[in-house]
Amino acid sequence: MAGKPSVLRETDDDARKLARELLRSARSAAIAVIEPGSDGFPFVSRVLLGIDTDGTPVILVSALSTHTQALSADRRCSLLTGEIGKGDPLAHARLTVQCQAERIERDSVAHGRIRERFIRRHPKAQLYVDFPDFAFFRLTPLKASLNAGFGRAYVLDGEDLLIRSPAIDDVAAMETRAIDHMNTDHSDAASKYAKLYCNAKGTGWRICGLDAAGVDLASGDQLKRLEYEKPLQSGGELRERLVILYG
Amino acid sequence: MAGKPSVLRETDDDARKLARELLRSARSAAIAVIEPGSDGFPFVSRVLLGIDTDGTPVILVSALSTHTQALSADRRCSLLTGEIGKGDPLAHARLTVQCQAERIERDSVAHGRIRERFIRRHPKAQLYVDFPDFAFFRLTPLKASLNAGFGRAYVLDGEDLLIRSPAIDDVAAMETRAIDHMNTDHSDAASKYAKLYCNAKGTGWRICGLDAAGVDLASGDQLKRLEYEKPLQSGGELRERLVILYG
Repeated sequence: MAGKPSVLRETDDDARKLARELLRSARSAAIAVIEPGSDGFPFVSRVLLGIDTDGTPVILVSALSTHTQALSADRRCSLLTGEIGKGDPLAHARLTVQCQAERIERDSVAHGRIRERFIRRHPKAQLYVDFPDFAFFRLTPLKASLNAGFGRAYVLDGEDLLIRSPAIDDVAAMETRAIDHMNTDHSDAASKYAKLYCNAKGTGWRICGLDAAGVDLASGDQLKRLEYEKPLQSGGELRERLVILYG
Repeated sequence: MAGKPSVLRETDDDARKLARELLRSARSAAIAVIEPGSDGFPFVSRVLLGIDTDGTPVILVSALSTHTQALSADRRCSLLTGEIGKGDPLAHARLTVQCQAERIERDSVAHGRIRERFIRRHPKAQLYVDFPDFAFFRLTPLKASLNAGFGRAYVLDGEDLLIRSPAIDDVAAMETRAIDHMNTDHSDAASKYAKLYCNAKGTGWRICGLDAAGVDLASGDQLKRLEYEKPLQSGGELRERLVILYG
């Protein structure tokens, strides 16, 4: 990142956490790809975003779209997340993640897992997720740039955006049951989490994702990410963590 | 656009008008560039957007940013505009414009014109527009893709997004005075235009741009574009057009 010494800050844990929240709380993203047959022309469009159990962003895209055709020819892509709030659009934090895309085959174990998580995050995607021209891609982060507002720029590694924990598979195996239990038997928990940890308002929140590093919370068009201070080290820690957070 | 026959629709005047509105009413855009020194990796970030008097999109960017360094090495870029409203993010119209960037030198006539229009559109940019590391680029549209919602895709020419009229310079020469007059002596006009032609609410609207093809309207964080059915053919038509629209 030559030429940036005066704005680039040392990447610390707060920056990493903010970056993870910006990625994992995004419903959609702008995706930059190389237009097929263009000799390298960049092309940007909009995609729905999900997150796999290891933190890898995933997209559900149609083979008819330029971005899908592009990723089939050149796997390199870049995602932009971070909502534009009130006031100056550039005063709000945003994250650029450069990724390598990998198509998820429909008969794979990963497909079933990703499909279920994606639909819980984007219920309306159920209408087209099984159309033959639609496919999931996992977008493995290679590196990222966080812009937390004017003069607050950070460079991150792809690793900073991935979940590293021995509990990933265990939590994934219990995710659906745990979410059903929480949203049914402790239906006030999601709204309490959203209020306490995500600066969110309202009471209509539900849990739409649980992984080794945190909780995804949804209410209407809003999506929030409660990121744990440290990832779980075993599936057995999940229940206790949710109880502690409830306070 | 091989492989897209089943979703691509014939481009008509309604599609062209929608595309122009999506570009000209945008406060910010996602911009895709080729990361410098990356051997062709796409990179996407966020920029403030303005529009020059001939419809060409313009950006104000810092030399410290990756996108500016990228454009200095490879002029090819792509803009994504179109706000995400309620419900499914992909149900809302968005526009991808592939452009060629041209840096505007600070002592040029174009710089003065672009600077004035940009600040009227983004008043807070006055704080940094004259910093030595900031520069404007004009992004000449080469072609565009309009996605008006599921299954409604259109391809456009760069020409479709430019204003072609003999009145461009005349209107530009009277723009500042005409805006001051309208916002001062006919201060209800902007809110009336916003309500009648842009489906907007509230009474705090002001005119922040006038060109041969339409009116830019601003209220707080909102920006709307009133696009005339046909561009003005002379500066002398401006007053009458504004009177007719007032009804």
